This record gives sequence, structure tokens and C-alpha cells, in this order.
Amino acid sequence: MNPTRSEERLRESLRQLRALLERHEVLETLAHKERGPRRDLLEALAHRQNLADLASRLRAIHPADLAAILESLPMEKRLLVWSQLDGAKAANVLVEVVPSVRDQLIEGTDEGRLVDLVREMDTDDLAYVSEHLPETVREAVYRTLDESQRAAVAAQFAHPEDSVGHLMTQEVVSVREDATLGSTLAQLREHGELPAQCDAVFLVDARNVFRGVLPLRTIVVQDPSLSALASVAAEPVVFTPADHAREAGKAFERYDLVSAPVVDERGKLVGRLTVDAVIDFLRRQSELEALQRAGLSGEEDLFAPVAASARNRWAWLAVNLVTAFLASRVIGLFEETIRGLVALATLMPIVASIGGNTGNQTVALMIRGLALDQIAPGNVRHLFRKEIQVALFNGGVWGSVMGLLALVLYRSPLLGVVMAAAVALNLLVSAVVGVAVPLLLQRAGRDPAQGASVLLTFTTDGMGFFIFLGLARAFL
Amino acid sequence: MNPTRSEERLRESLRQLRALLERHEVLETLAHKERGPRRDLLEALAHRQNLADLASRLRAIHPADLAAILESLPMEKRLLVWSQLDGAKAANVLVEVVPSVRDQLIEGTDEGRLVDLVREMDTDDLAYVSEHLPETVREAVYRTLDESQRAAVAAQFAHPEDSVGHLMTQEVVSVREDATLGSTLAQLREHGELPAQCDAVFLVDARNVFRGVLPLRTIVVQDPSLSALASVAAEPVVFTPADHAREAGKAFERYDLVSAPVVDERGKLVGRLTVDAVIDFLRRQSELEALQRAGLSGEEDLFAPVAASARNRWAWLAVNLVTAFLASRVIGLFEETIRGLVALATLMPIVASIGGNTGNQTVALMIRGLALDQIAPGNVRHLFRKEIQVALFNGGVWGSVMGLLALVLYRSPLLGVVMAAAVALNLLVSAVVGVAVPLLLQRAGRDPAQGASVLLTFTTDGMGFFIFLGLARAFL
Repeated sequence: MNPTRSEERLRESLRQLRALLERHEVLETLAHKERGPRRDLLEALAHRQNLADLASRLRAIHPADLAAILESLPMEKRLLVWSQLDGAKAANVLVEVVPSVRDQLIEGTDEGRLVDLVREMDTDDLAYVSEHLPETVREAVYRTLDESQRAAVAAQFAHPEDSVGHLMTQEVVSVREDATLGSTLAQLREHGELPAQCDAVFLVDARNVFRGVLPLRTIVVQDPSLSALASVAAEPVVFTPADHAREAGKAFERYDLVSAPVVDERGKLVGRLTVDAVIDFLRRQSELEALQRAGLSGEEDLFAPVAASARNRWAWLAVNLVTAFLASRVIGLFEETIRGLVALATLMPIVASIGGNTGNQTVALMIRGLALDQIAPGNVRHLFRKEIQVALFNGGVWGSVMGLLALVLYRSPLLGVVMAAAVALNLLVSAVVGVAVPLLLQRAGRDPAQGASVLLTFTTDGMGFFIFLGLARAFL
Repeated sequence: MNPTRSEERLRESLRQLRALLERHEVLETLAHKERGPRRDLLEALAHRQNLADLASRLRAIHPADLAAILESLPMEKRLLVWSQLDGAKAANVLVEVVPSVRDQLIEGTDEGRLVDLVREMDTDDLAYVSEHLPETVREAVYRTLDESQRAAVAAQFAHPEDSVGHLMTQEVVSVREDATLGSTLAQLREHGELPAQCDAVFLVDARNVFRGVLPLRTIVVQDPSLSALASVAAEPVVFTPADHAREAGKAFERYDLVSAPVVDERGKLVGRLTVDAVIDFLRRQSELEALQRAGLSGEEDLFAPVAASARNRWAWLAVNLVTAFLASRVIGLFEETIRGLVALATLMPIVASIGGNTGNQTVALMIRGLALDQIAPGNVRHLFRKEIQVALFNGGVWGSVMGLLALVLYRSPLLGVVMAAAVALNLLVSAVVGVAVPLLLQRAGRDPAQGASVLLTFTTDGMGFFIFLGLARAFL
């Protein structure tokens, strides 16, 4: 067998598919230009031949790759490719794609096909996509499940999306605590197949209470006559379904876990959290945060329809218009001063912008520090002091530079001094606000990554205008 | 054994340590206030008692937790805690902490202790931290290694920090391709212990050429008489040392890998990439990107000394001063127009800021799309068209709102029209620039996440002022 390079494989699949789709499009366009019976013939030909090519090509591609491919296609092509996937593959792809694309695919699929392909899923996957399904489809699929399957889906579906309970799998391999390594191995052989990402089996007592983690690598290399309970890993990391997935992610990172047991409040084993689910969550989370920092809800797909995109950006536009408007009212207070010296209008955006940019650096550091639990009541004063010192230093240096520039441009020493002082003071404001805003947001129970930047820019704009124009009115 | 909740455990350790450190500080402050012999006595007491408490407490904490704790302490306390760790633990902690903190710890440790603790590391860890060590320490440690260890460190050290070769471990378990599952199991038993994150053994031929991945779960459950080569996983994902860690990360995510073989250009097995190394890399990467987007080099630690922090922010401050200055020169061109109508000075920042904020949403979406390989030459035109439509729509709605506000504030219908047109046009500019800038940066071989936001804001500021003041000069 030849080693296959995964990224090359994906790129090659994508390239071939894009070529196929382009050919499809060209033929369709050609057909559209013709009139009458030749058009129908051409169209039918294009369709039949290409779709056959497409379907056969798709069969060879890994579902995770197909998900990535679908995410990178515009709407119509996305639905075209999707329509050519057979049931089991389509089911896998539906689980793998990002939520916004999943919603589109579900919307673009008729109910009969949807029921058929959702029926192919195991209970974990079914619970995972359940909330995206139309009520009628969900009901139709639930009717085909037996009692225990329905209970399993319901149990998982009950947990919020960012909880361990939602991400865990109920596929758990457990053995009784009185087993030996040899009898455990024999039980596993009987079991026949182990689930994916299974690096350990869990020991339980007669009442299914979790008793320990027994790594496969222990079972494989240790003396088979050893007692299982005596061979368990020291200090296992255990989660409950209510734990936040973010905290679980930190634990997986820190303790290099592959899988971990999930127990309920009575200590009973109810599931297993695996590293693949954790990585997917962490990746989605970090993408979401990057988009949220720019004021997007995060669910926006690059190829979403125009109306959806426009609506998605309204809230942010409105917030920014309000803050920009309020900051501009500060300037309104000084219109007389500006009339006296129009140079002020030219220079004031520099003061505002430098405050915003510098403050956002402090905000970025604070957000990271808060996310990593590095900030405690004991060191907040230290942080304020440090950021103020940095601001004083940079304010002195760069304030002087800007003051000199203003002096050279407008040949007014006093204007130079006002400019220098305003830059330095606004850097000080941005340092204090940059530390305070993320802290206050967190204390108020809000996500500091989300609103901090707007609040900061609002303050540094308003204060920048106020300080600069106020100093000018007083001294010029 | 009671299940321990990992995050609670860490928080509790942190709380206790902080209390200890505070007590230490209080006693030292008390001692400082006294004079003469009583002061010395108090100081000695404080030190001896507290350090003993501290050291004993530290012994019970997991190295990964200790790393997190060190990262959340200010400098002096950080070094105090660090000085109380014994050799093996200190070595583990040094590998776990973030690079900026690692550099500080190394700087604050005398060479003798450093050599002793680095000697405790295995070759993977040694290669991992090598470039952070002072030349003399590195030499001293290398002298204690045997030939093969030195070669192993050198081989790994030769790869760039963000390559698979740098992240992989050379601890590989391989068996010959002609083995059966039963003989493989016997070999593993003889081997005694399997490395961490080992979910599979690799098959090689007589010349150590990689032949297949044999999962532990196959070895455990399948018939021992089966041939190993017949039981390997289909389509294994294989890396080379030169592969970029980012691409490897995508493959781990997509194919749910726990470990994967690394082969050289002749197909020989040279190492193993594990999911814990990949997660650490992805996490560091996403943190770095968040900081870089705010113009920080990313290596800045929240508790870094003032001088280092100030210097770290200079480049960005300078860039922003230049762009803000250039944008303000656009205003300078219209000083006569502003003198005629000072309201223009008040309203112009709104036009500029709305363009910047909206454009940054487009930039954020583009950066994500590029990172996920969703953007191909074939769909760029589609993206431009879509973003322009969104801008036209939002520009029409919100431009009108701002135009009405300007009309109400300054009772000038013409000013209202100019305001509405300027907001709409600048949103159009921001849409085009927001799509184009990340694309151009990527085509130029630069990281689109890094410069896009500055370039965009520069354009939307400059164009915002130009459009608004230009329209005002023409029509008012």
C-alpha cells in the first residue's frame, strides 16, 4: 500500500470535482443558448452524463472530505453534489458539515430522503443533529427506534450544545471491577469490535458506578493474571454531563487525554468523551470567537444568500452607528473651536484612532489571560499598573513624534504641545479602559471577547475627541 | 478511588498556592517594617516556614497544572514557585509552559540547575526546548548524550517549529510486516510498556519502510492467527517531517486521528505524530492569531516586564500612526470646505468608522474561508458579487437612516443626501476591499490574518473622508 498524503488527497478530489461541476455548468449554459428540441436533448445529455460521472466520483471520497468540499461550494453546486450522495454517505456528511451548511442541506432535501438517511445514523449522531431536523422528520425517525434507543437520544438531546453531555458518546466499553486483565481481554474479543477513539475500557461495580480507567495499552502489555482494579490509571479525569465543553477541552489539552469517562451525579457511568469530539468543539469555538470579535453571529456561511448575510450584519451595523454617532456628538460640542482652527478637524482622527488601536492590544491580551484563568483578584492591580506604565512610556515617545509632526505641518508650537498631550492622555485612557472593560464584562457574566472591542473603541473615540478639542479650546 | 474533577482540582491548587504566596508576602512586608535584629529573625522565619509549605504543596500538583499556575503568576512569584520545584518536575513544567514564560524561567535559573534539570528530559522534549536554551547549557547537556540520542535530538531540532518533524515523537512502536496479530501481541508484552497516545503499532518491512497501521483495538479483538498485514487500517494518513503542522492539524480533525506515522522521502518510518502535540499546536496557533490580529507579536506574556511590553507594541503603534496620519492628510485637502461648514467635521468620523467596522466583518469571513480552503478561483467572482449586494442593501437602509439624522441635526436636506450617499458608497468600498485585501495578501504569500485589518481600516478611513468631503465640496 502506498502512503497517501491526506491534504493532497483532499485537494485532488476538490480539483476533480470542481472541474466536473464546471463542465456541467458549461454544458448547461450551452443548452440554454439553444432553442427548441436541440436544447432539450443537449440538456438531458449534459445532465445524465455528468451526474453519472459525479456520483461515481463522489463514492470514492471520505465523508469528512465531502463535508469540506460542500462547505466550499456555492449554494446551487452544493445542493447538486449533495443530491448525488447515497444514503449512508449522506448521513455521515450531514453529521460532519458545519451547522449553517447542515441547515441548508436539510432545507434543500425532501422529507422522504431525509427520513431515509437520518435512519442510517446511530443514536449519538441522531441526537447530535436532532435539533436541526424538521419536527415531522424527527417524529418519523423516532417512531422507528426501539425504547432504549429513544431513551438514549432523549438523554443526550436534553443537554445544551456546549456541554459534555451533548458531545459525549454513549458507546462505552465497560467491564466489572472484579475482572482480571486476561478475562477483560477475553471479554473484548467476544465483544468483537471496539468503538473509535477507544484507548481504554472503564471499570464499573455491580451498580454501574464508575471505578476506574483501564488503558488498552495496559491490557496489552501487562501480565493477564493481574487484577483489573489494581491496574487502573492513577487519578483519572472524570466529567459529568453538565460540565462545559470548554472546561473539558482544557482538561484534554492539559492531561493529553484520548477518551474520558462521563458519570452522573450518583457516580454511574453514562458516557464517554473522546478527543475527536473535543477537537471539533475547540475548532468551532475558536472560529466562532474570531467571527464574533468582528461582530458576526458566527453562523454565517461564506456562501449564504444575500438577504441572510445582510440581516446577519444589521445588529452590529446598528450598534456601530449608535456609538459612532455618540462619539461624533462630542465633536459637535466643539464646532466653534474647530471653526477657529480647521487643522483640529484634520488632526483629531489621529488621536482617536491611536487610542483605539493600542487599547485593542490590551483587550486582546486580557481576553487571552481571562480565557486561560491567568487573572485573579490578586494581580489585577499589578496589571493596571503595568499597562499604565507602558502607556506613559509609549505616550511620551509617540506623543512627541506626533506633536512634532503637527508643529511642522501647521507651524504652531502650541498646537504641537496640545497634540502631544492629547495622544499621551488618550493612550492612558485606552490602557485603563483596555484592562477594565474585559474584567467588567466578565464580572457581569458576559463573554469578554464579544463586546469589549466596541466598548473600548467607543470610549477611546469619544475621549480622544474630547481631550484633543478640549485642550485646544483651553490653550489655543 | 473517587473521581476527581480536573478543573476543580486545578482551581483548588491555585487557590491554595495564592494563599500561601500572599502569606509569604505579608510576612515579608511585616519584616521589612521592623528594624534591627527582630527584622532578620522575622524574615528568616517567614522564608523558612513558607518555602517548606510551598515545596510540599507543589509536589502534589500535576506538571501541566503547575505550568498553568506559573503562567498566571506575576514575575517575582513565578520565579519563587519555580525555584521550589525539584528536578524531574521542573523539567516537565519547562516543556509544558508557553514559550515566553519558558524564556523567563530559563533566564532566571542558574546554569548548574538548568543543566541538571534539562538532563532529566527525554530526547523529544530536549529537542523541543533546545532552541530556548543558552548555548553553554545546550553544549553541556549534549555532551552527556550518547551517539544515537544526539542524532535523534539533531534530527528533530533541524525542522522548523511549525513542521510535523518538530512536533513528532521518535518513540515509535513498529513490528515486521510478516507478523501475525498473536506474535505482535507477544512482542508488545515483551516490550513491556507502550508510549503515551499509542493507539496503533506500525508495520515495516526489513528496510524499515512503512507498510501499514495496525490499531491496538484490532490486535485486541481479532483472531490472533490473522496476518498483521491483512489487518491494517484502510487508507492510512501518513505525514512527512516537512509537512506543515497546520495541515496535519486539519487531517487529525477531519479523520479523527489519535496518532499517525511520519515517513521520510524514501518511505522509511521516522516518527509518530500524536493528537496531544497537535492539540497543543492548534491551541497555540489560535491564540497567536487572535493576538496577531490586534497587532501583537503573540509572544507577549500578560506579566511581561514593562519595557518588553512597550517595545512589543511599537511596530504596531508606528504602523497605525502612519496610516492614521495619511488618512488625516485626506481631510487636510478639504480644510477650506470644512471651514465653510463645520458640521462636516462632526459627521465625517461616522462615515469612516462605519466602513471600517463593516469591512472587518467581510475580512473575518474571508480569513476563515481561506483557512478552510473554501475559496477557489472559481468562486471569487461569486463572493465579490454577494458582498457588493449586501453592501448595496445595507448602504441603502442605513445610509438613509444616517442621512435623516444629519438632516434633523443640521436642518439641511442637501447635507442629508450627501451623508446618505457617502455612507452607502463607503460600505461599497469596504465590501470590495474586504474581499480583495485577504485574497491579495494570500496571493503575495503573506498571512491574510495579519495585515488585512490595518490595510482595510486605512482604506475605509481615507476613502470615507474623501467621499464625504468630496461630495460636500461638489454639492454643498
